[in-house]
Amino acid sequence: MPAPTDKNHASIREKMEALIRRKQKEITEGLESVDTVQFHADSWERGNDGGGGTSMVISNGSTFEKGGVNVSVVYGNLTPTAILAMKNDHADLKLPIDAETGLPVSEGVKFFACGLSMVIHPKNPHCPTTHLNYRYFETWNPDGTPQSWWFGGGADLTPYYLYEEDAVLFHTLHKKALDKHDTTLYPKWKKWADEYFWIKHRNEARGIGGTFFDDFNAKDPEEILKIVEDSFDAFLPSYLPIIKKRKDMPFTEEEKKWQLIRRGRYVEYNLIYDRGTQFGLRTPGSRVESILMSLPEYASWVYDHHPAPGSREAKLIEVTSHPREWAE
Amino acid sequence: MPAPTDKNHASIREKMEALIRRKQKEITEGLESVDTVQFHADSWERGNDGGGGTSMVISNGSTFEKGGVNVSVVYGNLTPTAILAMKNDHADLKLPIDAETGLPVSEGVKFFACGLSMVIHPKNPHCPTTHLNYRYFETWNPDGTPQSWWFGGGADLTPYYLYEEDAVLFHTLHKKALDKHDTTLYPKWKKWADEYFWIKHRNEARGIGGTFFDDFNAKDPEEILKIVEDSFDAFLPSYLPIIKKRKDMPFTEEEKKWQLIRRGRYVEYNLIYDRGTQFGLRTPGSRVESILMSLPEYASWVYDHHPAPGSREAKLIEVTSHPREWAE
Repeated sequence: MPAPTDKNHASIREKMEALIRRKQKEITEGLESVDTVQFHADSWERGNDGGGGTSMVISNGSTFEKGGVNVSVVYGNLTPTAILAMKNDHADLKLPIDAETGLPVSEGVKFFACGLSMVIHPKNPHCPTTHLNYRYFETWNPDGTPQSWWFGGGADLTPYYLYEEDAVLFHTLHKKALDKHDTTLYPKWKKWADEYFWIKHRNEARGIGGTFFDDFNAKDPEEILKIVEDSFDAFLPSYLPIIKKRKDMPFTEEEKKWQLIRRGRYVEYNLIYDRGTQFGLRTPGSRVESILMSLPEYASWVYDHHPAPGSREAKLIEVTSHPREWAE
Repeated sequence: MPAPTDKNHASIREKMEALIRRKQKEITEGLESVDTVQFHADSWERGNDGGGGTSMVISNGSTFEKGGVNVSVVYGNLTPTAILAMKNDHADLKLPIDAETGLPVSEGVKFFACGLSMVIHPKNPHCPTTHLNYRYFETWNPDGTPQSWWFGGGADLTPYYLYEEDAVLFHTLHKKALDKHDTTLYPKWKKWADEYFWIKHRNEARGIGGTFFDDFNAKDPEEILKIVEDSFDAFLPSYLPIIKKRKDMPFTEEEKKWQLIRRGRYVEYNLIYDRGTQFGLRTPGSRVESILMSLPEYASWVYDHHPAPGSREAKLIEVTSHPREWAE
């Protein structure tokens, strides 16, 4: 099907798409600067539906074990099932009802979505895994009139060993990017990340958090674009210094094993709770490899594993179980 | 809370519990006979709710990398939410409604459940992973009258390399156990396993199947107990000969890597689709370590991995994507 022809937000769509393509290039080049291997591009199209994307994938680097920086720009029809699944999180999204039959209109609503999502799993257990995602979503009624739009996203950090200075750097730079626009954003979005990345069955967070927001349309879209751009720009300065400092630290086999056990928790979170993964895997025509790009090269599960009290491993669990304030 | 006092099915409950405890001993001893390490027992209780269990766990063996044979006997109240989640699969299960208010009765129904569940992940990639589970479930209305009961379970095989003789042995012995009682059971339950263990987003089965059944109360419970016992007895003769034949086969690093990639699919299945796992992780008071005992020691994810056409790895995918008849 062709792209939506509505012009209301055409410039926002174009600017967001241009932004994520620019940031994909900047971020992959930034990460390549601390590794000996390069990302390779893998472009894909959405078959019968509209749009496609470019996955930039890195693997078996000396610094990065596995990672991906994925841009996607997709559009088409949202089925009534998909709308119902999304309505809880997006109050403006309406399920159009046929006035004559009283049933949901079968073609649902038209949507446009674009975003950049990234997960980077470094090799050295002293280097944290990181995840970042910024996206824009827009829908139209079957008659072509605009229905809803929102931005969502955030960035978060998943260390295997806690270095407080790393957590402070990551949170502080992301807070600064938001504070430039509105000092109420970081406190809300930091708390939202702590709640969103919670692994309920383990009663602990996936990592030490960061920012998370969704369904955000409470400001002018041009201003939100600037907030997203500034948040993007906070990423490399908050992550590369950590990687440079830790990538060549010596580590033991036990420390590597601990990293794999924590990566098992990462897999649990992404496959059981992450809404994008859940929604994506249940959506016909979605690209499974791009969705599961977030999974690590290796993960491990050990029955009833608990780190020794007072160990560095136990100290990590202490902060993932009791989220702290990190920003300065 | 105390165990249900209803006497209707008391002897079935007792016999099933005795059966699973006996089979836990037989199966763990059988598996130990082909390894250099032993299972260790880990008993647990259900906190505020009734019951508990014994997990028999093996790890780092020369034959078995990780595995568990778990018995649980639990009872208590099913909340309205749990009843609604189970009703699709269990037609006899009713949500009691208060006649005066028209709302679900808050204490829901009383239940008793016992079962044995097992997952064994061998070290050698030429040895298949196996899973087995037999369980009995019973509910009472709030006034103590019996409401519903059923048996469920099955056994299935997940090879990393296809040895047709292994698939034939496993299916044939499980078919024989059922054919003794009713020749319509195996065809139904074999097909059910092919459907149940389907990884939708990958469009392939977890392995080469086996048997699966649920909500089974279409025969006298004493006869079903015999069917379950004979199915239990089919397991060791259908699995140990495979392990003995394959556990010392030489393997390459590439074959081990392939095993870990397939174990990644096993993790995807268990965390995303397996109803016991989904239900367990969402049930307050359930024991997470026993539920996640099914996960392998190691799993791996490689972006967009496809085995070379014509390779032994591709041959496995061919049979997991197109389930075959194996029993003789």
